[in-house]
Amino acid sequence: MSSSTMAETSAIRSRARTTGEIEVGKAVAEAIKNGAPSIDPALLPRLRDLGPLNITENVHAINSMCPNPRQKFVFEKLVTHLHDFTREVSLTTEEWMLAIEFLTATGKICSDIRQEFILLSDILGLSCLVDSMNHPSMPPATEGTVLGPFFTQDAADLKAGESIASEGKGEYMWCEGRVLDTQGNPVPNCTIETWETDNEGLYDTQYEGRTVADCRGRLKSDANGYYSYRAVLPTPYPIPNDGPVGRLLKTLNRHVFRPAHLHTMLVAKGYETLITALYFKGDQFLESDAVFGVKSSLVVEPKLVTDETKAKALGFKHGPYWHLEKDYVLLTLKQADEQKRKSLKNYYSSLK
Amino acid sequence: MSSSTMAETSAIRSRARTTGEIEVGKAVAEAIKNGAPSIDPALLPRLRDLGPLNITENVHAINSMCPNPRQKFVFEKLVTHLHDFTREVSLTTEEWMLAIEFLTATGKICSDIRQEFILLSDILGLSCLVDSMNHPSMPPATEGTVLGPFFTQDAADLKAGESIASEGKGEYMWCEGRVLDTQGNPVPNCTIETWETDNEGLYDTQYEGRTVADCRGRLKSDANGYYSYRAVLPTPYPIPNDGPVGRLLKTLNRHVFRPAHLHTMLVAKGYETLITALYFKGDQFLESDAVFGVKSSLVVEPKLVTDETKAKALGFKHGPYWHLEKDYVLLTLKQADEQKRKSLKNYYSSLK
Repeated sequence: MSSSTMAETSAIRSRARTTGEIEVGKAVAEAIKNGAPSIDPALLPRLRDLGPLNITENVHAINSMCPNPRQKFVFEKLVTHLHDFTREVSLTTEEWMLAIEFLTATGKICSDIRQEFILLSDILGLSCLVDSMNHPSMPPATEGTVLGPFFTQDAADLKAGESIASEGKGEYMWCEGRVLDTQGNPVPNCTIETWETDNEGLYDTQYEGRTVADCRGRLKSDANGYYSYRAVLPTPYPIPNDGPVGRLLKTLNRHVFRPAHLHTMLVAKGYETLITALYFKGDQFLESDAVFGVKSSLVVEPKLVTDETKAKALGFKHGPYWHLEKDYVLLTLKQADEQKRKSLKNYYSSLK
Repeated sequence: MSSSTMAETSAIRSRARTTGEIEVGKAVAEAIKNGAPSIDPALLPRLRDLGPLNITENVHAINSMCPNPRQKFVFEKLVTHLHDFTREVSLTTEEWMLAIEFLTATGKICSDIRQEFILLSDILGLSCLVDSMNHPSMPPATEGTVLGPFFTQDAADLKAGESIASEGKGEYMWCEGRVLDTQGNPVPNCTIETWETDNEGLYDTQYEGRTVADCRGRLKSDANGYYSYRAVLPTPYPIPNDGPVGRLLKTLNRHVFRPAHLHTMLVAKGYETLITALYFKGDQFLESDAVFGVKSSLVVEPKLVTDETKAKALGFKHGPYWHLEKDYVLLTLKQADEQKRKSLKNYYSSLK
């Protein structure tokens, strides 16, 4: 025999590999050793000659081996939408490569203090959607809103009435109110995390050489659910706009500003954690928030107090100060869970 | 006056900022200086109180300011599908965070010699879809397939009959054929880039300490469109599976293997660049390719030649060798453009 078809020879090699009679390539052997599933190809869907009209069903077919029913369901929807989008816009190879490069740059710029993918999710309205689906409003409970990328773990523990901001960070603001349940009963010992920009529109993490937390603090509600602290009036600010997401917003001709706001996260045993923020009446960016976070129920209107004596009694060096009074109403875990189940079911069935 | 509403005061500050009478926060001022659009908020859609049922139309409204009609169209479809997907699966906050972390890790592992987002696109069938939409088959032209992540720019220039592989890289293979147009006329001076794994299933870039290209080469077709080179029989291999995409495939219970193939890219003046690969009859992974790249028209069946004299005449040290004869048929730029326009239009209208 001077020549034979490769198919015959290859079939022999294939069998030999399966039974371990001859050495397989290092790469395949090591992948299997490292835990890559080694599935009998004969049991798989026949994936060949795939193009625009049959790729989707075949990706579904191979993904249907996923043992987790929730993951299987999510990936079927994901692949369907990804492919339908690609077909509907007739995505070009150049646009696909732009997307690859954009996502890569977005990942590259992420760090311990910067999360560009959350920012991307924010400006596409995805964070607002996920947050509002998972924390449906249920009056009289306080509405939630997006967490944003500026929360840190290292805020100082404060006593009632202490200041979250160092001196010189902006116009004084006195914050007080109560944490309540939906029946109006006090929620004592609730941990209140709060953080905000200074009067330059900058979080402490945006200054170089930051050593301690500033314009952020952690305190507890008292036996009556009451809390109080000193802060400064926050100002509007741009979301980080020196990266891929900023460049994207520029091509979309969108501004990058958020209205001034005071972030608050409330954590109490037996209650759903409330992540929210207060916005300020009259702010020029209230209705064009770059990340779609403003809810009318969260817009507050502090009053200016010019009485020097009152200011000094509260611990300010001088007057005037803004007086912000706000009660927060929490849902029990059970209330939140029931409401969430009801709402998620609604959104899903409304789309079928 | 001992107190006034903040709204009045803020309105004054707002006007003052617009006219430059008082200093604005550093953050806003610097963002505008760095080129962030400073758009009159009064002209924007009123983005407030957004939730699952109205976020999508409002993201569309703000994105509709995009001056590029193609980008505007693509983003409208993108946001629609992203939001519909999220609603249809009732995406939880935890799942959203998993996705953020997955995308971040995918970006982080990318490097000059690794593109994990392309790999992600590959295993979701997106690369196959984009490639097949943008390079629709048009017999007798040779079908294209996915480029893959292993092409490099540094292959050596070879003369006809030279070897792309160094000695000891696997079973010998003699590759020859012609580059033709759709009328069967030769395409001379066509640049042929070719690259493949060795018999371990590894590309040269996967070995540590790589200094020169191996198992890859660049040559030209002659005046009759003829080309020839020596190579080795490639073997199946796993796509990189030690990163986020490999972990994802494991949770989906999918194997990570590609059938053996010989990549070829053909570039000739006046013709559409052809990115393709040849697969081998009898390969156990032909119908379960992890990246959906196999086309029946690209499956070849080299013949084993055991004649030592022939082997040595071709430049091999000994026999036997595999003989792979393959003609490539290119589309002119005009043919490719017409076919592409027709196909993209079809896919789009079939989905409306």
